[in-house]
Amino acid sequence: MEQSVQKRAATWIWYPGDFEIRLLEKISVKRRARDVMYPTTWRIDRQYSNIKFRYTYDLPQEEQIAIAAEGVFSLYLDGRDNNRSGDSTITLPAGRHEIIVSVFNDVEAPALFIDGVNIRSDSAWEVTSYQNDWLTPGSWTFDSADNRPSQFRLAVTPQEPALQEVRDGHILLDFGRETFGFLRFHGLAGSGDVTVFYGESLAEALSPDDCMLLDRFSVAKAAERAEADIYTLDEGKAFRYVWIHADPGVRWEHVSMLYEYVPLDYRSSFQCSDPKLNEIYEMSLYTLHLNTREFFIDGIKRDRWVWSGDAYQSFLMNYYSFFDLDVTRRTLVALRGKDPLTMHFNTILDYSFYWFISLYDYYLYSGDFAFIRQYYDRAVSLMEFCLKQRNSEGLVEGRPQDWVFVDWADLTNTGAVSTEQILLVRSLEAMSLFASLLDDEKAAASYKKLAEEIKATTMGLFWDEERGGLLHHRVDGETKPMLTKHASMFAMTFGYLSQEQRESVIHNVMLNPDVPRIRTPYMRFHELAVLCESGEHDYVRREMLSYWGGMIELGATSFWEEYDPSLADDAHYGMYGMPFGKSLCHAWGASPIYLIGKYFLGVTPAAPGYELYRITPNLGGLTHMNGTVPIGEGQVTLEMDSSSIRVESTSGTGILTFTSEEPPACSEGEVRNIGGSSYEVTIEAGKKYRVDYRAVLRG
Amino acid sequence: MEQSVQKRAATWIWYPGDFEIRLLEKISVKRRARDVMYPTTWRIDRQYSNIKFRYTYDLPQEEQIAIAAEGVFSLYLDGRDNNRSGDSTITLPAGRHEIIVSVFNDVEAPALFIDGVNIRSDSAWEVTSYQNDWLTPGSWTFDSADNRPSQFRLAVTPQEPALQEVRDGHILLDFGRETFGFLRFHGLAGSGDVTVFYGESLAEALSPDDCMLLDRFSVAKAAERAEADIYTLDEGKAFRYVWIHADPGVRWEHVSMLYEYVPLDYRSSFQCSDPKLNEIYEMSLYTLHLNTREFFIDGIKRDRWVWSGDAYQSFLMNYYSFFDLDVTRRTLVALRGKDPLTMHFNTILDYSFYWFISLYDYYLYSGDFAFIRQYYDRAVSLMEFCLKQRNSEGLVEGRPQDWVFVDWADLTNTGAVSTEQILLVRSLEAMSLFASLLDDEKAAASYKKLAEEIKATTMGLFWDEERGGLLHHRVDGETKPMLTKHASMFAMTFGYLSQEQRESVIHNVMLNPDVPRIRTPYMRFHELAVLCESGEHDYVRREMLSYWGGMIELGATSFWEEYDPSLADDAHYGMYGMPFGKSLCHAWGASPIYLIGKYFLGVTPAAPGYELYRITPNLGGLTHMNGTVPIGEGQVTLEMDSSSIRVESTSGTGILTFTSEEPPACSEGEVRNIGGSSYEVTIEAGKKYRVDYRAVLRG
Repeated sequence: MEQSVQKRAATWIWYPGDFEIRLLEKISVKRRARDVMYPTTWRIDRQYSNIKFRYTYDLPQEEQIAIAAEGVFSLYLDGRDNNRSGDSTITLPAGRHEIIVSVFNDVEAPALFIDGVNIRSDSAWEVTSYQNDWLTPGSWTFDSADNRPSQFRLAVTPQEPALQEVRDGHILLDFGRETFGFLRFHGLAGSGDVTVFYGESLAEALSPDDCMLLDRFSVAKAAERAEADIYTLDEGKAFRYVWIHADPGVRWEHVSMLYEYVPLDYRSSFQCSDPKLNEIYEMSLYTLHLNTREFFIDGIKRDRWVWSGDAYQSFLMNYYSFFDLDVTRRTLVALRGKDPLTMHFNTILDYSFYWFISLYDYYLYSGDFAFIRQYYDRAVSLMEFCLKQRNSEGLVEGRPQDWVFVDWADLTNTGAVSTEQILLVRSLEAMSLFASLLDDEKAAASYKKLAEEIKATTMGLFWDEERGGLLHHRVDGETKPMLTKHASMFAMTFGYLSQEQRESVIHNVMLNPDVPRIRTPYMRFHELAVLCESGEHDYVRREMLSYWGGMIELGATSFWEEYDPSLADDAHYGMYGMPFGKSLCHAWGASPIYLIGKYFLGVTPAAPGYELYRITPNLGGLTHMNGTVPIGEGQVTLEMDSSSIRVESTSGTGILTFTSEEPPACSEGEVRNIGGSSYEVTIEAGKKYRVDYRAVLRG
Repeated sequence: MEQSVQKRAATWIWYPGDFEIRLLEKISVKRRARDVMYPTTWRIDRQYSNIKFRYTYDLPQEEQIAIAAEGVFSLYLDGRDNNRSGDSTITLPAGRHEIIVSVFNDVEAPALFIDGVNIRSDSAWEVTSYQNDWLTPGSWTFDSADNRPSQFRLAVTPQEPALQEVRDGHILLDFGRETFGFLRFHGLAGSGDVTVFYGESLAEALSPDDCMLLDRFSVAKAAERAEADIYTLDEGKAFRYVWIHADPGVRWEHVSMLYEYVPLDYRSSFQCSDPKLNEIYEMSLYTLHLNTREFFIDGIKRDRWVWSGDAYQSFLMNYYSFFDLDVTRRTLVALRGKDPLTMHFNTILDYSFYWFISLYDYYLYSGDFAFIRQYYDRAVSLMEFCLKQRNSEGLVEGRPQDWVFVDWADLTNTGAVSTEQILLVRSLEAMSLFASLLDDEKAAASYKKLAEEIKATTMGLFWDEERGGLLHHRVDGETKPMLTKHASMFAMTFGYLSQEQRESVIHNVMLNPDVPRIRTPYMRFHELAVLCESGEHDYVRREMLSYWGGMIELGATSFWEEYDPSLADDAHYGMYGMPFGKSLCHAWGASPIYLIGKYFLGVTPAAPGYELYRITPNLGGLTHMNGTVPIGEGQVTLEMDSSSIRVESTSGTGILTFTSEEPPACSEGEVRNIGGSSYEVTIEAGKKYRVDYRAVLRG
């Protein structure tokens, strides 16, 4: 690459994806079963240890550069590889020359930082893993020699317990709500051992034999590691309560914690006439924030793993709240990992497909195609891997080693499962779009054709005209009579159904009590979204109040992995055969963020990066609401009651759509009738709009 | 797996190949350009960090076991993965249970050591990388908890310099001959810096600006690291001479070294009537020994890398000297590395093929099929990778990113190169044999058919009837007129030529001065072997005396990477554009070991593991010779002059074959005439044979 006029700061660069892959390796072994390691049950991928950077410059005069590396490096010019330097400063000769730097690191991802007046490491360099690949390197916000990628840590801030009391002679602390971080002992003295029992619930902390997390240490060990008389425990944990058992000879001044978190902007907001829904919204944000870490994880107590299906939902919630693209990209890159592909993401067939769909969403919400371009090859090879599993009818099936998951339910997922076909079709559509944007029209057409074929086959083989929905699976060429909601839901969301089919699905499948209920918040995310897409906002609002409100009634301070109102007392905390096995802070519990932002405030991108977007607010039974939704760098602010809508945005062009019983008025923009009682107003950035209308009451 | 009656000691176990792959990673960055890192120019593979072991036992009573791991481990029983223990001792309940142990290590290869009365880690366990693979784990001689695989180091022993003198005011040490190890300063004191210039030759050590290796350190740094007043330098180096430049304030008592080496049995021997040939044989052994390390490397000064084509020759030399199967296996496993296969071994097409042939040789010489079985899958996938490169005529061609090497010579290796086809055919034959031994007759037949097809195509397209040899390459469907020795040599060695073709190759190609000469000891290995196979022992003996003897005349104490008698003085040391670029201790320089053992002493396996073998001694112009060749655990000892042959072996059955001008006599066994003046005697183990005969003088 040619040197161009350099104005950018130097930044650490590495082999693309390897920072994320190394970080995921570290994170994948953070889970604890009490105080014992519980690593992910899939292959952990590893960064390359041996890589090489290059850059061609043309300098009118010699220039001194400073070189820092994560690992051992050697630098040479113009291919003269026997004349290497490992010095941390070097003077580059004037003229046109190619700098090459080998970096080796067998622990952390090899990385390079070069700083000079004109010559600086940045994305204009290239990197190879010695496999005939010269790629744009990875980089992020590591912009000084001392700010090393391998040292990346989340932020921490001190927090004090809200309450302290003694239970059965032992100190019990309550930090007021669910939190995550490192417990700290101040002024620890004496001798003996300390055991800390953590609880997301009070009952869990008070159950030394059954709590999911604990720490043990001796005062002597703590003394060695204490700084400024504060002993901070090594491992961050999820908890609200801690119960501290100590030998009689042990004493301390007090106990606090370091809350560990990603600094995020809360870029969305929502207030409405129902205080309970407001509380649900705020608690959803907090739940998502706790699970937004190095990556989007499933739950902070358990599993602390990066699951592709869970992340898919977190990505969507994030677009309606923090709009943090860094954690999104980190998660997408880390999930894809390295070749060879032998197992699906998290061993789950559907979870490979969610990755493609997540990539599509990323592009739609962010408009950032550079990221897609950088990882397109990895998407292509993943798709090749997936397509190898098609049967003689062209439908994808699980291999014996695959987990065909769909949902936690009593599902028989043998043969070709309809939901998997729908997800594959959507994945192929995403690939077709990407290929087209890369001007590879041949690939684009090929993906598109395959998508259409599989979609047609799926609708043909699974759609049950009589029962009005997609049947669940097909074994040995025979479609089984089982009817479930899943495939129909996704087909509807992705726009694969006719209007007639949509209506049938809503009434004959989604709202049909004879079709097996969806019990997990994981799949309820999709179920409630589909109901909103069919205008069932009022129903969804009541569901939110009952389901999420139900958890709050039980004292939740963050939303759970699962909630079954029929359980009694501490039985709520049990799961997986363990009395406190349930995660009480699970990312997918935060879906009201998405439902409210997308379907109540009603903001959705209509072109990548919100260049064009729709605002289709729906009170869904509320008397008023106001809120903010991030749209990339900018935001849409909306306030609505039954007679007025106020909208303001900072970027792009919005189309406000709403229904009104009488012709609405807006002095800031033209109101267009688009049929029946539906109207729209174009919203230009930087202008305040007020629309006077009369809400249509639903029959 | 079921527990069987346990008598074996506990041993460290790991994911198969990962010990070797991790070790290769460390070794691949040992090369230095002066004092700067020069890593391998291909991808370095990495061991898995996250693996899991399992073992099912049935115990009449409970048993306590001790658990050690390289990395963090957690143990659980019967799939109860929420009930994990990280304790170093645990009591296993009586009855039938499955133990599962997760081990994670992001630096060294994860490994496990379990010791109990009945339950011990060994090859009866299984291991997975969470990719639907439950494999027999790797293990070796790490048989105590403290003897950790990651701590594997070669042996060291102190050596003193043979001579010390002062040159230009600086101490010059001569260690008497080429060696490898860590320089040691005893009683280092004062202050200031020390620079050590290393030389394989005197001229190199005395060339501070051009020597290939150097070390710099300050007395202060040395003092920090010294033990018992001895400062041992961190890095082992290849050298005979060191020239030590120190600041005036620096002093020391004396300088010695720690010789670093693999403890090997010198299991072969050779003495003959020509003292120069004896010296060549001994120096060859020493040369090979120095290059026999963690793996078979090319040269101890440079590159210190594991090259598959070089290793192929070292394997063969090793079978005729140390018969060390450990370093052979380590090298084979490490070369294969991990998937995905994107580049050929060392980036060289032919080097992937040599690996298959080396695997075949390993089986032939050792009879150890268990090793082949363990890595067969990796051979299958490598062959799949290779076969993707066949062109429309079915011939293999290099891709743009491949190095089609063949030899260091002015070769144009575009298109389909005949040597590559011959190597591929041999590789397919090896795969066919392995498949057959694994009772996969379908695969065996498929490999065999492919081998025959490619062989027939190759002979058809490349054999030049007029010029009597195989032409070099074929581009765009046209065989080019270039005639080289390489393909014909390999075709002859692998038995692909008719008797008529063989004779033509010897006279029209091998001994034809108009065919480009082979100049590298690398390819001379094969050339001289072929000449021996054609009975040209006398010629080969004279070549050895002239080529290898020539290096000795110039003061060599180990054999070089290349030798050109036409060069003058220090010009011998130059290569790759550097005055001392040539390696003076290069494994392939040791080929007289192989030539003498295989073709003069004449011992070759006729069935895997030397169950049956041939002894076809040939004096090749010597008046007498005696020697020993290892045949697995045992050995053949032979003594021969023009009138008697004495043979003794310790295992297997040998067929002694020789020619005699008159009917020979042997009182210990029956002499059979096998046509003309050729005779054979069956040699039973443990019996001394003496054959009286009269040598046939060659025309």
